[in-house]
Amino acid sequence: MDFDTLIINGTIITANDEFEIIENGAVGITGSKIEYVGGASDLPGGSAAAAKIIDANGGLVMPGLVNLHTHLPMSLFRGLADDLVLEQWLNNHIFPAEQRHLSPDTVKRGALLSCAEMLLSGTTTCCDGYFYESAVADAVKEAGMRGVLGQGVIDFPAPGVPDPEENIGHAAAFARKWKDRSPLIMPSVFCHSPYTCARETLISAKQAAKQENVLFQVHVAETRKEPDLAGLEPGMSPVKYLDSLGILDEQTLVVHAVWVDSDDIAILAKQKAKIAHASESNMKLASGIAPVPAMLDGGLVVGLGTDGCASNNNLDMFSEMGTAARLHKAALGDPTVMDAETVIRMATIDGARAIGLEDRIGSLEPGKAADLIVVNTRKPHLFPLYHPQSHIVYAARGADVIHVLVNGKRLVENGRLLHLDVDDIMAAVNAVAREIRITDRGNYRA
Amino acid sequence: MDFDTLIINGTIITANDEFEIIENGAVGITGSKIEYVGGASDLPGGSAAAAKIIDANGGLVMPGLVNLHTHLPMSLFRGLADDLVLEQWLNNHIFPAEQRHLSPDTVKRGALLSCAEMLLSGTTTCCDGYFYESAVADAVKEAGMRGVLGQGVIDFPAPGVPDPEENIGHAAAFARKWKDRSPLIMPSVFCHSPYTCARETLISAKQAAKQENVLFQVHVAETRKEPDLAGLEPGMSPVKYLDSLGILDEQTLVVHAVWVDSDDIAILAKQKAKIAHASESNMKLASGIAPVPAMLDGGLVVGLGTDGCASNNNLDMFSEMGTAARLHKAALGDPTVMDAETVIRMATIDGARAIGLEDRIGSLEPGKAADLIVVNTRKPHLFPLYHPQSHIVYAARGADVIHVLVNGKRLVENGRLLHLDVDDIMAAVNAVAREIRITDRGNYRA
Repeated sequence: MDFDTLIINGTIITANDEFEIIENGAVGITGSKIEYVGGASDLPGGSAAAAKIIDANGGLVMPGLVNLHTHLPMSLFRGLADDLVLEQWLNNHIFPAEQRHLSPDTVKRGALLSCAEMLLSGTTTCCDGYFYESAVADAVKEAGMRGVLGQGVIDFPAPGVPDPEENIGHAAAFARKWKDRSPLIMPSVFCHSPYTCARETLISAKQAAKQENVLFQVHVAETRKEPDLAGLEPGMSPVKYLDSLGILDEQTLVVHAVWVDSDDIAILAKQKAKIAHASESNMKLASGIAPVPAMLDGGLVVGLGTDGCASNNNLDMFSEMGTAARLHKAALGDPTVMDAETVIRMATIDGARAIGLEDRIGSLEPGKAADLIVVNTRKPHLFPLYHPQSHIVYAARGADVIHVLVNGKRLVENGRLLHLDVDDIMAAVNAVAREIRITDRGNYRA
Repeated sequence: MDFDTLIINGTIITANDEFEIIENGAVGITGSKIEYVGGASDLPGGSAAAAKIIDANGGLVMPGLVNLHTHLPMSLFRGLADDLVLEQWLNNHIFPAEQRHLSPDTVKRGALLSCAEMLLSGTTTCCDGYFYESAVADAVKEAGMRGVLGQGVIDFPAPGVPDPEENIGHAAAFARKWKDRSPLIMPSVFCHSPYTCARETLISAKQAAKQENVLFQVHVAETRKEPDLAGLEPGMSPVKYLDSLGILDEQTLVVHAVWVDSDDIAILAKQKAKIAHASESNMKLASGIAPVPAMLDGGLVVGLGTDGCASNNNLDMFSEMGTAARLHKAALGDPTVMDAETVIRMATIDGARAIGLEDRIGSLEPGKAADLIVVNTRKPHLFPLYHPQSHIVYAARGADVIHVLVNGKRLVENGRLLHLDVDDIMAAVNAVAREIRITDRGNYRA
């Protein structure tokens, strides 16, 4: 069998249903698709039968990571302010910076920076929501990444949508514009939250998503205060509220789900809604600790996301895996929850499931798109190697990724981006940052 | 003024009392000492007056990190088993592997691997406790790192100490052997814990440490079960117990301190005992969440440690800083605790204070030893740069460190170790790992 690309000399973490791990494995790729996954010795035709050989050098080959929650352009505000109560952080720093400095041009610059960061740290698919999302889509397309991208809906004047009356129209127009425009871009509707969108907005936004047959993303139950902020009746949780509006279904991605109880989990499971868990952001903003092990026990599909890098402050999914694995052990006093295999599934196939792409990506299996990464393990902190899944979750970091392919196309080789000029991207962001520095109130903590 | 080495073109995080941050700064080094820290433009004699110039390339220059709790040789067991209850993990995997595979030779191999990992990720000083500690000291000395190293004391037969009756004798002999033997090695006594050492052992070990005038390290209040395991009377906490034995003083490093209440904190503060906090290990082993902000409010000196990399599973202090900063915000529901500046102090000057080295290391100030690192910020995940302290804690990782000096000597240049052969070190560890693989029960999770 002839392949366009053949990856050899690596241990393969397939993330398939059996979670097979193949030592001395090979992955054969033709066009955009994986054709062969198995032992190198079983390879039909031998290893010479490929136009291009990638030697994994004894490293780990695994599916590209799926970052289930991002606001890509917010890299513009990385570290602008930290360690503040949410209202101060938003009102004194983030909102003013967004109002003053966002345009399609600056949004694209920030999104490109985030794409560079994601690719270099092994993320091949992101699920994003922001404003000027068409500019985000341009950046993701230019980067060659896979993205589920949603134009933001919120009941306030927003960047690019000065009149909230037009928020759903904008979101629907975005979905129509990007439908079938690029094989790697899947449009979505990103409705901000139950406390920033009125009942009617939530309902109409979900209707628009249904009409376009796209994913509906919404922040839900992120903070303890949310029921109050949303003006919910006593006893009415954000999940129950959204369920009462008919918003929860298998094409709804519930982001955060920190303050959910067993009733909420049962509702989410019944409606087959999907969950994006962002442990590092939830910790940094002191939102709380989502009951992820209980959600998994309840049969929910839960993936991992970094959140925007103004509240993380990076997009490293390796770090996110390590934190998610450790956090819930501490929270429950049980070291057996969130084992390495479970966490890798969350960052790969379950992330794919959450955005309806499980038939295309999330595991290394013949017929799936060739979205995969190679992790270099010839480094002291990844030595010795007893169990690949352990290193991926507990010891590796984004910087250990050396090769990245998306849809069969090589985007990162030996730790360097092949089709993006990082220096240009950083210079373009720096020009925006200079302006932000001038107008920010300048008091880092308060 | 002539310097042996001059670092230019970086932003300096001094970690001095005022936490000064100097843009376009310079650090001048002569012999083992820092002679100049300040603006490049104020440099006496200009930048040409140095035998060796290190161009920080716009990056961040800061004190080398102090890892306050390690068991260096345990890198041999990195990822051997995870996600297990403590007893299974110890009894089925770690203890058998330690009994079968430790010798001065294998301990040194593991310790060298850990030194390589630490240096490459910006740690210049570690505080370690293990068995065959003389072999650890040989490794740390060979690596050129600074270390406070304690021979283990425990009331069971231990590697190298088959007869527990001799445990204190071994520890005291180690302290005498390494006193003044090497300028960078400070011996210590590492007494395992109140539940593995009898009352008499604890008292005698502390007496030995006092007699040798060295640091006394002890695991305290790591798990909720510890009072029971130690057979303490109802109402007697591990901290109160150690205090009643006269063990807590300013030369005692209390490691973990997870299950401490306000009375315990008051006792620790009164006795001026120091605290080593290991958030990632505490999370992974599900030990609990130490009340670090309350300890800081109580006036305690608290530093950060990774713990051994069988329970972390890396020695990356950047990751540890990020986790510590985020964890306590989530635990307390307060995003203002553990701000970036506080966390950097914990990983530098407060770590130095905890082991009695605050006059020598922990901040960049004239007269101190030149233990310092340069962080490369020309990477997408560290862009843009508004506040250096934010990136160090919330976005950087060990792999961003490019230059490391210890005691004025350059050990890492452009991300490569100058005096250690990483391939040799990894091959030596691999030979041990092959044996461990054969004898380990082979069931990763249980």
